[in-house]
Amino acid sequence: MVAEIITIGDEILIGQTVDTNSNYIASQLSSVGIIVRQITAVSDDPYHIKAALVNAEQAADVIIMTGGLGPTKDDLTIKTLSDFFGMPLELNNEVLNHVESLLSARGVVMNDLNRNQALVPTGAIVLPNKIGTASGLLFERGARRFFSLPGVPFEMKHLMKEQVMPLLMLQLNDVVVVHRTVMTIGLPESTLAEMLTEWEDNLPVHIKLAYLPSPTSLKLRLSARGNSSELLESEIQHQITKLQQIIPDNIFSLVDEPIEVVVGNILSNNKLTLSVAESCTGGNIAHMVTSVEGSSRYFMGGVIAYSNTAKVKLIGVDSGTIETYGAVSGEVVSEMAKGCRLLFNTDYAIAISGIAGPGGGTDEKPVGTIWIAIAGPEGVVAERHRFGDNRERNIIRASSRALNILRLELLKKK
Amino acid sequence: MVAEIITIGDEILIGQTVDTNSNYIASQLSSVGIIVRQITAVSDDPYHIKAALVNAEQAADVIIMTGGLGPTKDDLTIKTLSDFFGMPLELNNEVLNHVESLLSARGVVMNDLNRNQALVPTGAIVLPNKIGTASGLLFERGARRFFSLPGVPFEMKHLMKEQVMPLLMLQLNDVVVVHRTVMTIGLPESTLAEMLTEWEDNLPVHIKLAYLPSPTSLKLRLSARGNSSELLESEIQHQITKLQQIIPDNIFSLVDEPIEVVVGNILSNNKLTLSVAESCTGGNIAHMVTSVEGSSRYFMGGVIAYSNTAKVKLIGVDSGTIETYGAVSGEVVSEMAKGCRLLFNTDYAIAISGIAGPGGGTDEKPVGTIWIAIAGPEGVVAERHRFGDNRERNIIRASSRALNILRLELLKKK
Repeated sequence: MVAEIITIGDEILIGQTVDTNSNYIASQLSSVGIIVRQITAVSDDPYHIKAALVNAEQAADVIIMTGGLGPTKDDLTIKTLSDFFGMPLELNNEVLNHVESLLSARGVVMNDLNRNQALVPTGAIVLPNKIGTASGLLFERGARRFFSLPGVPFEMKHLMKEQVMPLLMLQLNDVVVVHRTVMTIGLPESTLAEMLTEWEDNLPVHIKLAYLPSPTSLKLRLSARGNSSELLESEIQHQITKLQQIIPDNIFSLVDEPIEVVVGNILSNNKLTLSVAESCTGGNIAHMVTSVEGSSRYFMGGVIAYSNTAKVKLIGVDSGTIETYGAVSGEVVSEMAKGCRLLFNTDYAIAISGIAGPGGGTDEKPVGTIWIAIAGPEGVVAERHRFGDNRERNIIRASSRALNILRLELLKKK
Repeated sequence: MVAEIITIGDEILIGQTVDTNSNYIASQLSSVGIIVRQITAVSDDPYHIKAALVNAEQAADVIIMTGGLGPTKDDLTIKTLSDFFGMPLELNNEVLNHVESLLSARGVVMNDLNRNQALVPTGAIVLPNKIGTASGLLFERGARRFFSLPGVPFEMKHLMKEQVMPLLMLQLNDVVVVHRTVMTIGLPESTLAEMLTEWEDNLPVHIKLAYLPSPTSLKLRLSARGNSSELLESEIQHQITKLQQIIPDNIFSLVDEPIEVVVGNILSNNKLTLSVAESCTGGNIAHMVTSVEGSSRYFMGGVIAYSNTAKVKLIGVDSGTIETYGAVSGEVVSEMAKGCRLLFNTDYAIAISGIAGPGGGTDEKPVGTIWIAIAGPEGVVAERHRFGDNRERNIIRASSRALNILRLELLKKK
């Protein structure tokens, strides 16, 4: 099956927005063996959108469009598709009800612009968008299928996952592709690649490996292609078992879930509670932990002790310890963790203090130096880490790393 | 002048690499008024590259290609261009000398693959690449110009800046495009569009408006096209002034910067300090504030009072207030804000408490109900807001909204 992707929006063509949508769509399609032939970005111009559709229709079985479905005047996609397919617009009551209930849940009164979002070309199949007012649409012409999705990345991803991919998977019969994602943390890509050289060289030819780095983790994706998904699953599992022996502490999940979910599950299953005392990460660890639904069961709260005064006054760090060792030290984070655990009366506490950058480094403690401590029922552990110069990445990487240290501590206790 | 961009490389089509090159090129071209009509990503396939060139040649004056110029077998662009333009390859001695000296400076001995990089289609103009072995090339056919640039972003940018842009500028007579971005918050796209109908309808034809929504803000981009950038600037400014009268509280910046930077600047310039007490946003406001470099000058710290105990014990909320009004109430957030301000001894404190979802809602306080309070030198203000059902978006939207309320309070004091 061959696909083309068309992204619609002037913001891409004037260079204001990087087109990450087409990247996401391409990776999803590729992951199931669909070949993406071309990605085309065009402006919000009906004539040009139609020209791109004509070209794509000649070359691809599936055409996926994003963008131009909003309620405002610069959103011209629906009208253009109505013309292109010769399908007049008509009010779709289901869509109208959905838009109305979504807006009323937000306390917004529906206006004519929103009502226009319920105009659907007759004959197009509506792909419900639970999280937004712009529905996805599916047009079928001959053997070709055209999907139209909103350009808001969050909504586009939702529709790809819930609607487009399941529909496409129905028609991918013979060849099976099985993917498994192994989540790792704590090793740079080049180091990990070196440690895995032998294992990687010995992978069967029908199993492919991809490294997918991000600031929070490094995913390893194994993709196996064959006829029996059962057989492929067991072959991949065999390889993962070998992998676990090479990097036991760095694998935090065998499904594609973030570290905060893994840690949350361990805490929740063992009826344990957590609090955090953050300096350099400025609330990001708490933000990650509380982004998980139901985290109020195990997360009691936290302190962002950005100033030294806050460290002393709120969580009882000895000002002498700060004077002697500095705020970025094993001694101070250990006291922070112990103080935080007492203050919130939790089983565990994470404390973190470091130099996120870009300023504030010294020869002894350069930018990126970050101390992490975990206080638990059996005492405190503290580790010094060294990240890079980039503030944003340091905050994200240090937060994820702290959660992995907590994970390893929790597993020791089992 | 109309341009098209063609990026060549399988890594983009399988979704492994986000195509940031075309974004850079588009922004450079746009900034001088060149219209980018289309961006096309194609695979490393001669047939497909030629098809894209044929299409682009029909529609554009300038075609800029990137990628496929490396020394390895999958780099097919030069051979394809030689075919396409009917210009046989010949060894270019200047290029050969450049490649040789560049490699020897790196301690690398030249091999046949590198030598092939000195093969240039006869009649093409070489654009010297001081920092890499792959030269840029310029082909002229009729009134069309085709630029071929390497795909390595660093080298592509170097050639754009040193070679392509100066060549294009020579032929740009008059047309200029000026873009301005206005950052708004607090109004859904459809509501804003309705409020702006009259203003939008009265925009001069050469000024275009685009709505760019995200969970943290809704950007309005004004693009004006004409002959004098000074005149266009002043025309856009005139429209923005009118816009400010329609939605005075919702515009937080006239440049493309996030709300946390705007608030940080006001605090910093007025030597004011801030602390936060977060419940439902779980540290995200603190995270946004501390993501800004130098935020330690005005941000003293915060408390994540996720449990009621933490609200009472840490920031002195009266447990009776929680019992009477519930944790999600104007009374509780007001006490949180006052308590937080005292605890951290700051000029201002933000407090927030709500139901982020997806569970926990009631008829009276449905999911998405969020109370925000700001305590300052002159007392406390509290507002009730209603967001949607999605936890992640509620956290982000409520955090941004809280920062905007603080911004408005700060401006009142001036």
